[in-house]
Amino acid sequence: MHEPNQEWYFVERPEGEPTLDCFELREGDVPTPRRGELLVHVRYLSVDPYMRGRMRDSASYAEPWAVGDVLQGGVVGEVVASESPAYEAGDLVTGRATWSEYAVLDADDAAPVDPEIADLPAYLGVLGMPGRTAYFGLLDVGEPRPGETVVVSGAAGAVGSTVGQIAKLNGCRVVGFAGTDEKTSWLTDDLGFDAAINYRTTDAYRAALDEVAPDGVDVYFDNVGGPITDAVFTKLNVDARVAVCGQIAHYNDEEVPTGPRKLPLLIAPRARVQGLLVSDYATRFGAAREQLETWVASGELDHRETVVEGIAKAPDAFLGLFSGDNVGKQVVEVAGPSRGEDHSP
Amino acid sequence: MHEPNQEWYFVERPEGEPTLDCFELREGDVPTPRRGELLVHVRYLSVDPYMRGRMRDSASYAEPWAVGDVLQGGVVGEVVASESPAYEAGDLVTGRATWSEYAVLDADDAAPVDPEIADLPAYLGVLGMPGRTAYFGLLDVGEPRPGETVVVSGAAGAVGSTVGQIAKLNGCRVVGFAGTDEKTSWLTDDLGFDAAINYRTTDAYRAALDEVAPDGVDVYFDNVGGPITDAVFTKLNVDARVAVCGQIAHYNDEEVPTGPRKLPLLIAPRARVQGLLVSDYATRFGAAREQLETWVASGELDHRETVVEGIAKAPDAFLGLFSGDNVGKQVVEVAGPSRGEDHSP
Repeated sequence: MHEPNQEWYFVERPEGEPTLDCFELREGDVPTPRRGELLVHVRYLSVDPYMRGRMRDSASYAEPWAVGDVLQGGVVGEVVASESPAYEAGDLVTGRATWSEYAVLDADDAAPVDPEIADLPAYLGVLGMPGRTAYFGLLDVGEPRPGETVVVSGAAGAVGSTVGQIAKLNGCRVVGFAGTDEKTSWLTDDLGFDAAINYRTTDAYRAALDEVAPDGVDVYFDNVGGPITDAVFTKLNVDARVAVCGQIAHYNDEEVPTGPRKLPLLIAPRARVQGLLVSDYATRFGAAREQLETWVASGELDHRETVVEGIAKAPDAFLGLFSGDNVGKQVVEVAGPSRGEDHSP
Repeated sequence: MHEPNQEWYFVERPEGEPTLDCFELREGDVPTPRRGELLVHVRYLSVDPYMRGRMRDSASYAEPWAVGDVLQGGVVGEVVASESPAYEAGDLVTGRATWSEYAVLDADDAAPVDPEIADLPAYLGVLGMPGRTAYFGLLDVGEPRPGETVVVSGAAGAVGSTVGQIAKLNGCRVVGFAGTDEKTSWLTDDLGFDAAINYRTTDAYRAALDEVAPDGVDVYFDNVGGPITDAVFTKLNVDARVAVCGQIAHYNDEEVPTGPRKLPLLIAPRARVQGLLVSDYATRFGAAREQLETWVASGELDHRETVVEGIAKAPDAFLGLFSGDNVGKQVVEVAGPSRGEDHSP
């Protein structure tokens, strides 16, 4: 195809908080899929906090982006041309690709999307990587038991909102931290959280927790770090488990962040703190997806997506993650409403 | 009995570092054992870092001492009178009692001591609570695998020196931090540690680790906290395990200590950090004791005790723990050499 293809390039490593200067929109050619690949017309792009790590020039779990690379991330789109027997033109798929209007996906790495179960953006959130992260992080690392108190930071995000609901499905008392009253209301009124704390309208996190988690904290699912985490660690019960999924409060730090030491707090409760990467659970993604789809289809697992329209806005959507602009999963609708078709149920 | 009985009382809660003013030696009566109890002539008293926690007026895993209480701790002694069928006068036993010349022990809580296996002080160290702490902390929390690198802080202490040797018995590469050249030499020359770092003669802990642990750290057994721990956390390998046994660097802090945040360092390696209390493993103490005695008897597990002579010196021995005066296990010989008999093999 010789249509122009808008693509976002990574052109400058940020120091501290990333800016729009890190990104550049260029016009390229629509790529040609090779054997085993799919050419996809991208409908939605995912922007995720972990991508901040890929902007650093240091090896971590996610390979760093090289300056001059096309940006990469999760997408949902429609197959335009298939070089794999597993898919044909017109199929809706999700997978890892590039921040572009047209992208090539490895068919083995792609998964089908069923718009009868949920609208397309949900496949980048509750039915995508964030949903799987919540599922394995809570169940495998957090090991919640009925009657226990589960605290979630970043609770109105794609991961946190799913964590809290799965904890409720497991019979737990659930407390979430979020940054606006709209978000805290969503958590308690729509998602069934037992309590939610707006961390921007109080700074007495420990006192707030004393009120809504009077029996202490059995499971803490941490997406954030910083002072919220400091407060939660002072309330860990015997045998408490902490899943360290993200530390978005610190992703833009240029100096090593400091804070209250936590190891002295772990001894008396024999608490366990464990870092979490969803890729470790890849062999069980199928089972997770099936369970998550079942819960979504039955209405037991609610979800929201915050949609920014137009591929031109992708960097803004990414930067907005660090100020908490999103409720639920932040996605980018590539075409914008003027060009997109509606595959929502 | 109407002999006088020297007893140490806890008379003042410390702020910050404890001083001799916290303790008072008084003369009481020799107690009378009740049914199920033993009257023991105490030969050796144990002083342990965890006792600092009992000096605080706040509930923790160890019940706080009340001001005015007789101090409590582990002892080894000889049964003088028995109200239990399990022991008779002349038996050597170890158990929990008071800092005093004569003490009453619960027979159910006592264990026999065999001076053919090791001299009596060892039953407060490698064959006592510290040895069991090392055993369960390393094997159950640290889960060392052959070929892995194990780092131990407080490595020349009663717990740390045992941890390192058990790690060697499990085929690991072992690196210890200790505070004098005498200690580091003991670790490498006598105990078989692969390397030891004197934390007082360098402050470049990370660089020192780069040299002796070039492949990173798989297991960290932490007795200390502070800057040593800060350095080790920057070198955790994928799937690393950290056993938080003690944080002696922070026990005397009056303010909440601060330092580099560690949770951001856990995500990429999916490291696990877990607090440890040996009492959780009580049902398996028998098996641990059997294994530790076997290793000690065969010479595979070496040990040292630092003996302070005379019950009058017990507080000094305790305070010395915080300046690292002890090599191996710190004990107090109650009678002093002029009154004691030698039960050592």
